[in-house]
Amino acid sequence: MTKQEIHQIVSRRSRPAKAPLGRDIIVTTALDLLSRDGLSGLSLRKAAAALDTGPASLYVYFANLGELHTLMLDRALSAVALPAAREGGWRERLTFVLASYLHVLYNGHGLAQLALSTIPTGPNALRLLETLLELLLEGGIDQAVAAWAVDLLVLHVTSVAAEQSVRRDQGYSFGPVIGAINAVSEADYPRIHGLREELLSGGLARFGWGVDVLINGILHAPTLPIATEDIAKPFVKPTE
Amino acid sequence: MTKQEIHQIVSRRSRPAKAPLGRDIIVTTALDLLSRDGLSGLSLRKAAAALDTGPASLYVYFANLGELHTLMLDRALSAVALPAAREGGWRERLTFVLASYLHVLYNGHGLAQLALSTIPTGPNALRLLETLLELLLEGGIDQAVAAWAVDLLVLHVTSVAAEQSVRRDQGYSFGPVIGAINAVSEADYPRIHGLREELLSGGLARFGWGVDVLINGILHAPTLPIATEDIAKPFVKPTE
Repeated sequence: MTKQEIHQIVSRRSRPAKAPLGRDIIVTTALDLLSRDGLSGLSLRKAAAALDTGPASLYVYFANLGELHTLMLDRALSAVALPAAREGGWRERLTFVLASYLHVLYNGHGLAQLALSTIPTGPNALRLLETLLELLLEGGIDQAVAAWAVDLLVLHVTSVAAEQSVRRDQGYSFGPVIGAINAVSEADYPRIHGLREELLSGGLARFGWGVDVLINGILHAPTLPIATEDIAKPFVKPTE
Repeated sequence: MTKQEIHQIVSRRSRPAKAPLGRDIIVTTALDLLSRDGLSGLSLRKAAAALDTGPASLYVYFANLGELHTLMLDRALSAVALPAAREGGWRERLTFVLASYLHVLYNGHGLAQLALSTIPTGPNALRLLETLLELLLEGGIDQAVAAWAVDLLVLHVTSVAAEQSVRRDQGYSFGPVIGAINAVSEADYPRIHGLREELLSGGLARFGWGVDVLINGILHAPTLPIATEDIAKPFVKPTE
């Protein structure tokens, strides 16, 4: 037997049969890649390679990377705990759901970044959205205000998770910030100087406080602008 | 003259002298790289290559990539417009500053991502922080509440810029989301179904509304928790 023939047997015939492709296994594989390489390291090409197939095979299941992102996020959201009905007040249950959402995003490497760019629409995302709307309406919030408020709450928690998980993954050091705030000149920055202790305090306590402030703001929200634009309209017109 | 000699003259002797290295030119180069390749494409190695030098030369000026990030963000923040003193009410001026901050981050590719992971402490960041504190205090907000509220406001605007600029850069299509929300079953998701129009409306109007809600929440903020932790304490303890 030639060397080439031995190589062929090992690499082509002895290895286990491939698992059949499908949306579920592709999503699972992509979530593994995300947790290993982060969002910027994820592509349909890499997911295909990890599944021992070509990108073209994946396009049978997903129109594009965005569609895969949507399903990945929805799968991840299945871990968000919803509160038992009527246990505690609506604010308490709302905070409970948001804290669970924070934990799910924070504990998955790259998940918060994914959530910042993707609007999931699968069953888990819809279940979360329906629950948040239900809790706000139970709190007596105006219907239209509740519709926009959900986005505000979810974006807030998502960005806290993104900020904190990126810092964790980068081994961010607060040393320089603490040094700089403590060193500001009282003459140039009187308010920063006067509030330096409060500016540098917080940690986990800030999360609960921030959600409280947001809910209070939603309870005192202005009504929605009458002439609203389509959500798909470019948000800010870039100026060059 | 041999071919090799001609090559030597062109490549070694005729080219312009290198600009002297320094923090300013390194920051400028890194911002160019950021706007071209995004945050994940940025490294000290790449910045060094663009400056025609080795990474070791850059370590003379920056202890690490985080320090470079801090200075890049501070440079970018020099474009944030501060309101003319006492022109309009404090809320109006606060919204003006935040809108300017949004535009600066949104218009720079990768800048919002950078702002989400970096706490800048240079003169432009301090000037912005001092101005925001000044406006909140002018509005009669409690001092300690103002210290934490600034972070809440800045994080909100940063995450809106990050979300919107990533969608712009990825050519995100709202089509599937609009389709999915309009298609939910009234029996399974009665609130989403009933509020589908409001859920899908907004565009730019949502930004002003969201800032209004936040400011109202800050005006009705609970006092700070008494036993506050250090800001550097891990925000959420990962659970495995």
